[in-house]
Amino acid sequence: MERCRLVFSGSGGQGVITAAIILAEAAVMWEGLNAVQSQSYGAEARGGATRSDVIIADQPIHYPKVLQPNLLVCLTQEAYTKFSSIIRPGGLLITDNRYVKIQRKVDAQQRELPIYRTVMEQIGRPIVFNICMLGCLIAITDIVKPESIMKVLQTRVPRDFLEMNQKALQLGMELAARPPA
Amino acid sequence: MERCRLVFSGSGGQGVITAAIILAEAAVMWEGLNAVQSQSYGAEARGGATRSDVIIADQPIHYPKVLQPNLLVCLTQEAYTKFSSIIRPGGLLITDNRYVKIQRKVDAQQRELPIYRTVMEQIGRPIVFNICMLGCLIAITDIVKPESIMKVLQTRVPRDFLEMNQKALQLGMELAARPPA
Repeated sequence: MERCRLVFSGSGGQGVITAAIILAEAAVMWEGLNAVQSQSYGAEARGGATRSDVIIADQPIHYPKVLQPNLLVCLTQEAYTKFSSIIRPGGLLITDNRYVKIQRKVDAQQRELPIYRTVMEQIGRPIVFNICMLGCLIAITDIVKPESIMKVLQTRVPRDFLEMNQKALQLGMELAARPPA
Repeated sequence: MERCRLVFSGSGGQGVITAAIILAEAAVMWEGLNAVQSQSYGAEARGGATRSDVIIADQPIHYPKVLQPNLLVCLTQEAYTKFSSIIRPGGLLITDNRYVKIQRKVDAQQRELPIYRTVMEQIGRPIVFNICMLGCLIAITDIVKPESIMKVLQTRVPRDFLEMNQKALQLGMELAARPPA
């Protein structure tokens, strides 16, 4: 497989770090891959954009930070402003269309998706926003199977909330499967 | 300050990764420091020891992995067997005395603490085992203030569980304050 370098970015509370950890665990525990997951916090993290990096590969991974992601997710305008320029040419940029107004073209496939709006309309609970975003990501990229994400969620999410998480993942996959507007 | 390099190790489900993230966030959000937090998962992660690295510094941090921790926490025998040799000479090794039997001397201060037993006797819920461990750590090292940990917990833990987390943190600090046996 091609080495997959992801950066998830947004603000604290959107579940960016949790999403990165769930994806990394799904890849390792249920797909037999290697993964490294990290976050750097610095002066800019205080009130600024949160960023979480994941590398997934079938080979050993030696350097854990992502310099040029081939997959970049931006969930706030600030994250978009700060990180959109680092995308690898030919990569994929996913943004949420409520939080981010696209301001320039980058040399990448761009998908503006109504993730937040869909979660609020169909589920009504922002807590599964990050899981819906993961649904979009795995539908577009096939990095891991949805069953692998669900198996990780079963070990992390209280039983009463599993169904809501499954619905959020499914909604994300359906969103991404629609042809780009 | 001296750069603080930590490795938390144990098994999945002990909250090792969550503890690392809480500590990193406390340092950055409430102490004005920089932090990097990461986990590598590979073949050995499938059923093996979980490891999570944190670096905390008042200077920028360029390389995110810890090669020789000056603080090492081992919460299972497997984690101890695998990681105890990487400790930096003169460092601090913390183990839980229910899960780990110390088998050799390393060139480090060793503290065997009854973290699990205390949590089960005083609270009865293993879910706050990792928070009690953080209490031990911050009491011994003063890396961050307990108030900083609590402020992070307030953003992550449902309100009904905050008191239990506070009690676990406090118990950990008391445990570590007792003179070594």
